[in-house]
Amino acid sequence: MELYLIRHGLAAEREDYANDEERPLTSLGRKKTGKVAKQLRERGLHFDLILTSPLVRARETATILQEAGLGSQVEEFPSLAPDGDISVWVSWVQKRWQNASSDQCLALVGHQPDLGNWAETLVWGDAQEKLVLKKAGVIGLNIPETKTPVGQSELFLLTSPKWLL
Amino acid sequence: MELYLIRHGLAAEREDYANDEERPLTSLGRKKTGKVAKQLRERGLHFDLILTSPLVRARETATILQEAGLGSQVEEFPSLAPDGDISVWVSWVQKRWQNASSDQCLALVGHQPDLGNWAETLVWGDAQEKLVLKKAGVIGLNIPETKTPVGQSELFLLTSPKWLL
Repeated sequence: MELYLIRHGLAAEREDYANDEERPLTSLGRKKTGKVAKQLRERGLHFDLILTSPLVRARETATILQEAGLGSQVEEFPSLAPDGDISVWVSWVQKRWQNASSDQCLALVGHQPDLGNWAETLVWGDAQEKLVLKKAGVIGLNIPETKTPVGQSELFLLTSPKWLL
Repeated sequence: MELYLIRHGLAAEREDYANDEERPLTSLGRKKTGKVAKQLRERGLHFDLILTSPLVRARETATILQEAGLGSQVEEFPSLAPDGDISVWVSWVQKRWQNASSDQCLALVGHQPDLGNWAETLVWGDAQEKLVLKKAGVIGLNIPETKTPVGQSELFLLTSPKWLL
């Protein structure tokens, strides 16, 4: 199974919002994220499901992916919020996806450093914060179908918008 | 310092060459590698030095990078041949580059699984063969200037030609 971890686009400044969870994408953030989504779609990518952090900037990013034709199904996944626990997602994926066909493709939309940490945990078993994931950047992993993905996955893509656009 | 690890392009079949070291790129390999080089150049990349494995398919790849305007200086580096020892390169880089300015940019052209193993060693301290690097694919690392790069580097790019073209 392929798993894509996508960081939300450029969002409004922290000082302009009392509640960090409500910061929306800026118009530049929306535009650049839209361009990234278009490039991913043009390369043939399609997600069977897009899971997103419940924060506004992540939900808006997921909607942009959806509107670009990358996937019709979007669901909020609370553990994708900052400091979320990967083990909740690992349990979920083992129940829901590991009996699915191997060509399934799943996207997670969330935050840094969490997405980088999740990727390192899935590939190497622990997180050292060594992956640089820019806003609207993308990580791609091959996830095994028949065992726990923790420490058993492969990394095939890590890119900022710069290399895609 | 930025370090790019670039795998040679598609090469002729093993059975057609008694000596594996002499396998050249195919015409498709040359074409695709040229397109990758052009994309890297258009994104503003420039190498102060390109080190290459002495094998024909790697040297041809380095020449394509050079011809695309990515760097004028190409040198053979024997440890970039298959099964080469990263510690030779680490000693070299510490002597030659670590007092250079931080915006220096170096490319290594070589083979799999070696390049993926070198990248994992530089970032996480050991190699688990968890990076998927396709032919003419690219890895990008941030290398610290003031200490050993082993286990101290960051990964900011891993891509196959698919995502660049």
